[in-house]
Amino acid sequence: MLPRLTTTPAATTVFTMVLTQGPVSRVEIAKRTGLSSAAVTKAARPFIEKGYLQELEATERTAPGAGRPASPLAIMPDREFFIGVKITDDELIGVVTDLRAQPLLSLHRPLATTDVDGVVAELTALVAELLAADPAYTERCHSLGLAVSGDVDKAHGLVRYSPFLGWRQVPLAKLATAATGLTVTIENDVKSLTVAEQWFGEGVGASSFALVTVGVGIGCGLVVNGHVVAGSHGVAGEIGHIPVESEGPECHCGGRGCVEAIAGTGPLVSAARAAAGAPEMTIDTAIDAAHEGDPAVREVFARAGHAIGLAMAAMANLIGPERIIVTGDMRGLAAYDLFEEQINQSFAAQAFGAAADCRLLLRPRSFEQWARGAAAVAIQTLFTF
Amino acid sequence: MLPRLTTTPAATTVFTMVLTQGPVSRVEIAKRTGLSSAAVTKAARPFIEKGYLQELEATERTAPGAGRPASPLAIMPDREFFIGVKITDDELIGVVTDLRAQPLLSLHRPLATTDVDGVVAELTALVAELLAADPAYTERCHSLGLAVSGDVDKAHGLVRYSPFLGWRQVPLAKLATAATGLTVTIENDVKSLTVAEQWFGEGVGASSFALVTVGVGIGCGLVVNGHVVAGSHGVAGEIGHIPVESEGPECHCGGRGCVEAIAGTGPLVSAARAAAGAPEMTIDTAIDAAHEGDPAVREVFARAGHAIGLAMAAMANLIGPERIIVTGDMRGLAAYDLFEEQINQSFAAQAFGAAADCRLLLRPRSFEQWARGAAAVAIQTLFTF
Ligand SMILES: [Zn+2]
Ligand SMILES: [Zn+2]
Repeated sequence: MLPRLTTTPAATTVFTMVLTQGPVSRVEIAKRTGLSSAAVTKAARPFIEKGYLQELEATERTAPGAGRPASPLAIMPDREFFIGVKITDDELIGVVTDLRAQPLLSLHRPLATTDVDGVVAELTALVAELLAADPAYTERCHSLGLAVSGDVDKAHGLVRYSPFLGWRQVPLAKLATAATGLTVTIENDVKSLTVAEQWFGEGVGASSFALVTVGVGIGCGLVVNGHVVAGSHGVAGEIGHIPVESEGPECHCGGRGCVEAIAGTGPLVSAARAAAGAPEMTIDTAIDAAHEGDPAVREVFARAGHAIGLAMAAMANLIGPERIIVTGDMRGLAAYDLFEEQINQSFAAQAFGAAADCRLLLRPRSFEQWARGAAAVAIQTLFTF
Repeated sequence: MLPRLTTTPAATTVFTMVLTQGPVSRVEIAKRTGLSSAAVTKAARPFIEKGYLQELEATERTAPGAGRPASPLAIMPDREFFIGVKITDDELIGVVTDLRAQPLLSLHRPLATTDVDGVVAELTALVAELLAADPAYTERCHSLGLAVSGDVDKAHGLVRYSPFLGWRQVPLAKLATAATGLTVTIENDVKSLTVAEQWFGEGVGASSFALVTVGVGIGCGLVVNGHVVAGSHGVAGEIGHIPVESEGPECHCGGRGCVEAIAGTGPLVSAARAAAGAPEMTIDTAIDAAHEGDPAVREVFARAGHAIGLAMAAMANLIGPERIIVTGDMRGLAAYDLFEEQINQSFAAQAFGAAADCRLLLRPRSFEQWARGAAAVAIQTLFTF
């Protein structure tokens, strides 16, 4: 197991700033963090000694007589590698990334079963294949991040409940550690993607933002005051279970009129079938029908967009995120233009006052990027005190 | 202006822990915060020298040979006093508190006008009267906190918009400083009450909690990961504008079916009048009628309780607070038993999974306690780095 390098809050602060916002000079780090120059230098030293950080050539011109120019600190991205894997119900998607969570290689592996032992066996083979691609990976990759949909207890490495996989109380971190020999971090998949955005994506520099995923489920990751919201009882970001239609359909959660019961892929297809009188309709043919102008099917998508827009407004009214990143799985995104206008309109109508200033950013994210999210969680875990 | 005592994050951490959880030994502070013993001692020293903290007699028995026993640190509550004032549309409620935000004296002053100059004049007289009550107040009170409903920009001391007062862009902190000579902090009234609960009330020790106020408006203060949620665009905690009835009434915010448009005092009375066919009904007579068993009026309260319960569940699903403190103004609370059963039932039905484990605590809070919230914000501002 990798020894932890960040043993003080100052070390975390300094390393994180260089990692997510670097190259950046010690002076600038001190200015932004409120740490003394001496504390910044002390915090950076072990990272430089162990090859995680480097001092770049001084390039900034300073005023005459202002002393030697500042040498910015930068990450050594190849110092260490990370594997991230997204586990879906029919395949594993794995990536190797550098310290900055930049994917260097990705591989897919179909799953014949969602049985725990079977998934762990395929995972082990996938990890071996990824590591074998480059001797540097074998040498300098010690961490594996896994992203799973559902209720994941990161602290205890436990998948408490994953409906899509049919798993309950699976000690996945322990099983994967035993099988791969790597240090394993597991996290909910939407939270993983949120961490990737927070440190390496659209969330960099935002103290608060939200990520909303549209697809089979409607999920949400939240960052407030610089931290991912975990929920005291393990539940947070369940935007899909905000009730928006008082007489709406019953939801699998036991509630009524939930966003997910209207705009999730399953209910959406059922509604489109009913509206079009076409019991054979799939999500793909429903999207096609809407694109071809079928008014009944278009209305189904608009109703879903309305539900999503209202829920996003409810969230913005409560949390006040700086921006909302909207993303989804492939199919969710293929349909996004059918939702988009109604989402924007319903969000604007229901957002309270200045909450409407929150920007909505549509950002497609492939399954490789979800896998990268798992690697980002492994990176964040390693370097957070 | 009072010199700031807390000039480092460690000073804030140590002082805050003694203030909100003391008496507590240096060893225990070091253990809970991760600071070194030397850092705790260094951080505490100026507070002891200036009389804000004291060392109590060592009372803890330690193991033989374990060195001298630990002397707990405790607050000197009378070292400094604070004034908090809640501004409503027809009166000012003011309190003097000690360092622990314990009210020592309270005074009310009716407002003949909500005109800014008139309110500032009454505020000045109220502050003078409070300070005159004890020579110690005059000597050791330098901070005034003001709580105002609406959109308040604490950082700039500006009331951006307060519908109840009819104020827009009022530089209240500047005006009150000029009139009273005190250091003035202003904050939204629900956020102020939330700060009082966070540091001195039901929120102590909870990393995340919510406070929901039921009355003329339906408001909410949120603490997530130990920090009050402010909202990137100045809007947060607007639980009153979560849409819960798709065909519900239009709301003053421009949305439809908002909780506040159903369960706020005004809409509630209108609905009760219509249901009972009694155009003269007031909130008091509506409550009486419901208590006497009028089924139509009881149904109006149940509908309001349903709306509040759904919105609280939506909030819990998103944030996952450890607990929700439910409070309100006098009238809201007089009616609370009429809402309560439906709130609990609708919350439980809509809360997602373990979010339903969140406890709902009904806690009456008088206007004096709202005023105390304003003092708590002044205290928190003074002692936060
Ligand atoms: Zn649901
Ligand atoms: Zn509204």
